[in-house]
Amino acid sequence: MRATHALRSTTPRAVRRCAPLSAGRASAAVSQKEQAPATPETQAALDLNPPRGTRDFYPEELRVRNWLFGQWRATAAAHGFEEYDSPVLESEALYVRKAGEEVTQQLYNFEDKGGRRVALRPEMTPSLARMVMARKNALPLPVKWFSVPQCWRYERTTRGRRREHYQWNMDIWGVPGVTAEAEVLAAVVGFFERVGIDSADVGIKINSREVLAELLAKTCGVDQADGARFAATCVLVDKLEKVPAAKLYDDFAALDVSPDAVDALVEKLGEGGSIEALEALLGADSPALANLREVYALAEAYGYADWLVFDASVVRGLAYYTGVVFEAFDRSGELRAICGGGRYDKLLESFGGDALPAVGFGFGDAVVMELLEMKGLVPDLDSSVDAVLFALASGDGDNDAALARDAAGVASTLRKLGLRVDLVLEPKKPKWAFKHADRKNAPLALMLAPDEWANGRALVVKDLGTGDQANVPLDELPAWLEARA
Amino acid sequence: MRATHALRSTTPRAVRRCAPLSAGRASAAVSQKEQAPATPETQAALDLNPPRGTRDFYPEELRVRNWLFGQWRATAAAHGFEEYDSPVLESEALYVRKAGEEVTQQLYNFEDKGGRRVALRPEMTPSLARMVMARKNALPLPVKWFSVPQCWRYERTTRGRRREHYQWNMDIWGVPGVTAEAEVLAAVVGFFERVGIDSADVGIKINSREVLAELLAKTCGVDQADGARFAATCVLVDKLEKVPAAKLYDDFAALDVSPDAVDALVEKLGEGGSIEALEALLGADSPALANLREVYALAEAYGYADWLVFDASVVRGLAYYTGVVFEAFDRSGELRAICGGGRYDKLLESFGGDALPAVGFGFGDAVVMELLEMKGLVPDLDSSVDAVLFALASGDGDNDAALARDAAGVASTLRKLGLRVDLVLEPKKPKWAFKHADRKNAPLALMLAPDEWANGRALVVKDLGTGDQANVPLDELPAWLEARA
Repeated sequence: MRATHALRSTTPRAVRRCAPLSAGRASAAVSQKEQAPATPETQAALDLNPPRGTRDFYPEELRVRNWLFGQWRATAAAHGFEEYDSPVLESEALYVRKAGEEVTQQLYNFEDKGGRRVALRPEMTPSLARMVMARKNALPLPVKWFSVPQCWRYERTTRGRRREHYQWNMDIWGVPGVTAEAEVLAAVVGFFERVGIDSADVGIKINSREVLAELLAKTCGVDQADGARFAATCVLVDKLEKVPAAKLYDDFAALDVSPDAVDALVEKLGEGGSIEALEALLGADSPALANLREVYALAEAYGYADWLVFDASVVRGLAYYTGVVFEAFDRSGELRAICGGGRYDKLLESFGGDALPAVGFGFGDAVVMELLEMKGLVPDLDSSVDAVLFALASGDGDNDAALARDAAGVASTLRKLGLRVDLVLEPKKPKWAFKHADRKNAPLALMLAPDEWANGRALVVKDLGTGDQANVPLDELPAWLEARA
Repeated sequence: MRATHALRSTTPRAVRRCAPLSAGRASAAVSQKEQAPATPETQAALDLNPPRGTRDFYPEELRVRNWLFGQWRATAAAHGFEEYDSPVLESEALYVRKAGEEVTQQLYNFEDKGGRRVALRPEMTPSLARMVMARKNALPLPVKWFSVPQCWRYERTTRGRRREHYQWNMDIWGVPGVTAEAEVLAAVVGFFERVGIDSADVGIKINSREVLAELLAKTCGVDQADGARFAATCVLVDKLEKVPAAKLYDDFAALDVSPDAVDALVEKLGEGGSIEALEALLGADSPALANLREVYALAEAYGYADWLVFDASVVRGLAYYTGVVFEAFDRSGELRAICGGGRYDKLLESFGGDALPAVGFGFGDAVVMELLEMKGLVPDLDSSVDAVLFALASGDGDNDAALARDAAGVASTLRKLGLRVDLVLEPKKPKWAFKHADRKNAPLALMLAPDEWANGRALVVKDLGTGDQANVPLDELPAWLEARA
């Protein structure tokens, strides 16, 4: 990390008496203000909700999020991937360069104060591509990276829809063969297995745009080598899932694909219900089928072949995919796709660079949490405190203050031993403190009571699991805790 | 975590054949597009830099960031604080309500497509206040929460300045006494000690706005009870650090403070160079001084009194502080303030709610990283792989593919044992693989060589520390690894 000057005040300020504002709380809203008129102190009550479509994470919710992210990170580490990150704000140009696509109203884009078009990232792949491209000659290949970015979109018309989600991304750059597809699929399955989901719960639909390319070449005269036209056609074929073919005739016609050709394609897609059926359509020597077969052979070797479901209709909506595409789904059919990904060997080309083989997936936080909750697989998460420590209120202010200082010293001692100590900061009665410790899920409550403390610096230690209570001198507490563990 | 539908496609889509797009890669830039015309495939080369003033984090940089955040989180856990988060985007109104302040050009604010004024958060405290206020009747007090948000500001005129940083925030709500100040200061010191910084490197300047209030009452006739005027005056007093008093006469006059009163205040501030000196000014029975003395007594009990430096000139620039204020600084005087915070008991009032006692600090990532690098305290961080696994290239494509499948199976086995395995995805020679393992800082390289593998499924295991090499059958590998550990 370059440690350069950040968020620094522009106003010269004498260092002699006081270091300038910066790393602490220095609101950009105020730090440069030259005038400080008295304004009305209170105004209309504030809207207490986060902005529409976004979430606050209170501690009980953030514990769950951290648990999910921890599972993602552990899975990525098990597969030897390294974490990266990029700014949530990107140049809008990053999202308008891809063949066959246009910026729509869903991009959370705006003009900054300098007149630049920027956007909150809708997905991570373009940022990753930018980072890889920026260091292409210095990065040893293959690159195996992961990230857990927050991604944004803007929806104007509907209510109750989220405008942000978190998305686990894993990508491999520099490996042309399907060993890369098989490895990222192993990570997807590795995550599911880690959290207790098996192949009876979830399947992974798999297809290949190369298969589609061979079908398109046979039926529509669209060649994969004609990248922009092929990509645009794939985006339309993806729509065949949700819109009757006849409604898309005009769009296909704009790509020089006739209604008859569209109908022929739809027929072939319907016939290609299995790899065997596709072989009848494409021939035994089809390179696309050979690649798909190799993914299956690798999946067999990894031990996750039972998760895969061939589905010729899976195309994925992004124009940049060029080869194998996949999406995980819950077999009950109740939820939307859980994750999706594929090969995108030409993305850097569309950014004006040289092509570089790449495979990856995005895995959002929302659908998988629905699934985990449906299946009761979200664990109870502790609040992660080893002990609640408090000084017993005596009712005498001076005595209470003195005992509070001693409690601070005990907290300091115990924290240096590695304990996570929640120090109660006001004099309290045991009833309050034990209830508090219970709510915090703390295994122990430690009380400084005036008499016991005065008599040999003993703490009253209560085991909140058993209810047992003992007086333990502070200097014997480390041994007492070790014996208990 | 509420698992509601996020980033969902608005277009109805048949679920029968294929689950709708959503949790996978579904770019907001494209998923709703109804037209897919062929556009020119490549355009002008992309700008490979992140937006001005922002940072990419390549893996080697993110490792350092994760290390820093890990130290912050461990410190917060040691003190019994719970993590929370809120959206990086907030309503602009959240930043214009504070007394004595106005939104300036530095707020990264803009109008969204729905015509709402929003901003990338410049600091975390207003979001925290919003969250506390939203659940005030349901939250058991005290609240002890921390967060590590990315905060933004917009600077139009200068180059090379950061527009974002990360900032560790810790706050206690609901404790009126200075035990809360002492506890958050203990966490600041706890972090420094954890990373190897001691009180010879860093000090913490401490003062109190109550002290300032007593001085203002004596010299300027500004009463702390007149919240807006007091806050605005504090913001001006903070400026006395960097601007000659005479240049601020007009601003003070707007608050009904005469030039003579300003001069009297400056004189008193100059005289109040120690708590003892202040006692001469304010009297032995000053409540503000009693509070400051109690902070010192608690600091003594915690064991960090040697970090504290009384400094009557420390005011902090934020209007919302009401009591003790502090900032950490490097004693060499080379850097800007490392962190800053204080008590802000009236923030909820300024939001239209009831007052609630609160104390907290913000601790940015930039200055502390400069300090840690200056002092050589940033550790070497591993890339966190236990083994690099590869199949030896034979030059025969079919044999290589078969061995690659076996390597995938071995990777799967080892990962289920808990090992972090970087599987090489293409057939490689040992020279490349060992160099790769070295670059990854992996302790072990595991090779599937055709003969050894055929002969009893043995792996060639190389210890990259010692250079030792051994053939270990796969089913003996767990025991072999355990014996080695």
